[in-house]
Amino acid sequence: MTIDAQILAALRNGKNCSVSGAELAIQFQLSRAAIWARIEELRSLGYEIEASPHEGYRLNKSPDLLHSDDLLARLGDSQKIGRDIRVFQETTSTNDVVERLARDGIAEGVVVFAESQTKGRGRLGRRWVSPSGKGLWFSILLRPTLSPQFITQITVASAVSLRRAIKQITGLTPEIKWPNDLLLNGLKIAGILTELSAEPDMIKHVILGIGVDVNLTSEDLPKELEGVATSLRIVTGRRLDRSGLAVQFLQQFERDYALLHSGRFEELADEWAEACSTLGKIVTIQTPGRLLQGRVEALDQDGALLLRTEFGRLERVLAGIVQSHPI
Amino acid sequence: MTIDAQILAALRNGKNCSVSGAELAIQFQLSRAAIWARIEELRSLGYEIEASPHEGYRLNKSPDLLHSDDLLARLGDSQKIGRDIRVFQETTSTNDVVERLARDGIAEGVVVFAESQTKGRGRLGRRWVSPSGKGLWFSILLRPTLSPQFITQITVASAVSLRRAIKQITGLTPEIKWPNDLLLNGLKIAGILTELSAEPDMIKHVILGIGVDVNLTSEDLPKELEGVATSLRIVTGRRLDRSGLAVQFLQQFERDYALLHSGRFEELADEWAEACSTLGKIVTIQTPGRLLQGRVEALDQDGALLLRTEFGRLERVLAGIVQSHPI
Repeated sequence: MTIDAQILAALRNGKNCSVSGAELAIQFQLSRAAIWARIEELRSLGYEIEASPHEGYRLNKSPDLLHSDDLLARLGDSQKIGRDIRVFQETTSTNDVVERLARDGIAEGVVVFAESQTKGRGRLGRRWVSPSGKGLWFSILLRPTLSPQFITQITVASAVSLRRAIKQITGLTPEIKWPNDLLLNGLKIAGILTELSAEPDMIKHVILGIGVDVNLTSEDLPKELEGVATSLRIVTGRRLDRSGLAVQFLQQFERDYALLHSGRFEELADEWAEACSTLGKIVTIQTPGRLLQGRVEALDQDGALLLRTEFGRLERVLAGIVQSHPI
Repeated sequence: MTIDAQILAALRNGKNCSVSGAELAIQFQLSRAAIWARIEELRSLGYEIEASPHEGYRLNKSPDLLHSDDLLARLGDSQKIGRDIRVFQETTSTNDVVERLARDGIAEGVVVFAESQTKGRGRLGRRWVSPSGKGLWFSILLRPTLSPQFITQITVASAVSLRRAIKQITGLTPEIKWPNDLLLNGLKIAGILTELSAEPDMIKHVILGIGVDVNLTSEDLPKELEGVATSLRIVTGRRLDRSGLAVQFLQQFERDYALLHSGRFEELADEWAEACSTLGKIVTIQTPGRLLQGRVEALDQDGALLLRTEFGRLERVLAGIVQSHPI
């Protein structure tokens, strides 16, 4: 962690009390003048830090921006996910950035955020609207020791992590639309794009791309998403702390990713099944090359959907575009 | 096709007869001096082109080098595979080169050859020895409209294509060791490395990397490959025409790749089954996370191996490291 991250952590640990400059100076082995310089730098980024001569520094308010030091400070001790956090003001797509890092051999767990994406992607090459400062657009590099056929487990794990994080921050409980969307009131608030690089029997890396519509207003959503997407702000009626939500998600996912690796995918699958609005529904699924129709019966151990088709056969569907029908 | 490729094609079409410079000049709308300059350029690369004042030009011998124009000329009309051929003197791994081309959006079918690779890869990150001018080390970019789970079909298709090409050129019939090796007398002469970039339900691209030990001598093979690998030259006792083998393979694979796309994988699977030394054998297969033992019964429609385990269960194995045992 950088000094800035450590100072922010110390101020946050102080809760509403002040932390003296002398204490910080001793803790970080810096002069009080150097601490003052760091505080000034943080203030210039929008952190409202009160300084009183006798009491010291107090963090009154954090700006609504993604700051890698702040995210690291709030995340605390992570074993894997988010040990390395990078924030870009603008990029094409955070998945592209992580793809390049992956090829350079970066360790798993790096997280790349962007305040805005010029070419945000949804599944199957679809556009993902990512206006500046309004949402969470980020990607995580994973190097799981899984066979490529279990890739959908990662999408499932991240969906339940994200659902829990949103519940924690907003009190609202999104439903999951298989395989990769989170909905509130039937409208999309988040999507997950899992990209895979592999040999037939070995995953080289997975890039988990996540987009959450946090503080978008209805003006921020393009016309074509009317009746399709919404945002946490529109639903709750208030601006939310994007950094807080990001940190909450990364902590939840750290746990779920570890569960998955210790062979406990079933626990995630059970949680997923409870949240899944697709289960039990009569659906049409467009898979590459086939159009299937039937009732969704369960989630398989590799994350596949088990579909009882109109002909009574049980089909495993690894991925596809789902449309549900009134029962 | 470039002018050089077209001139080479015209000279080859002339078989052992000469082709007049005047004819070539008319055909390519160039001056006779310009044709002469191209001929000189080809000679400098090692093409032995005889010129006689009254008869014209005759191609007596091609050099033992991979030349993109020559490969294009010999390949003739290909619909897809090899419409674009690039030859490097040296590269890290041809798969790496094609990976970069893929990300730049190049169309499928581009083939990249290297005379030598400094970091040739086999499956699962293993080294592939690729000495200069001795073998065929190349990669093909594919953008199949297949679900990622069918990726092994591509390995199977390329294995039967390569086997047919080798048979055509050498008269020898290699056996196939599932999923990606070709053997002669039980020793490896070629390997196939399939690398995948995908979303769970959509392949973005596949890179098919192929290494064929063509003209390696036993001195070219490192000690650790003794009793493991051999070359076509060692087995046949003669130097072989690498370009001819490359062209033969690309033509065979063009056909098999089209078959695969028209839903006729079964025909390839039948041919594969005939050639496969793994079928019927008692084997141990190391898959990620599991060690399986049993008798190989068949190939499944997605290219998976069907293994009757020691407990009588039929297991589908998508990939793994196979060791066979004496029955």
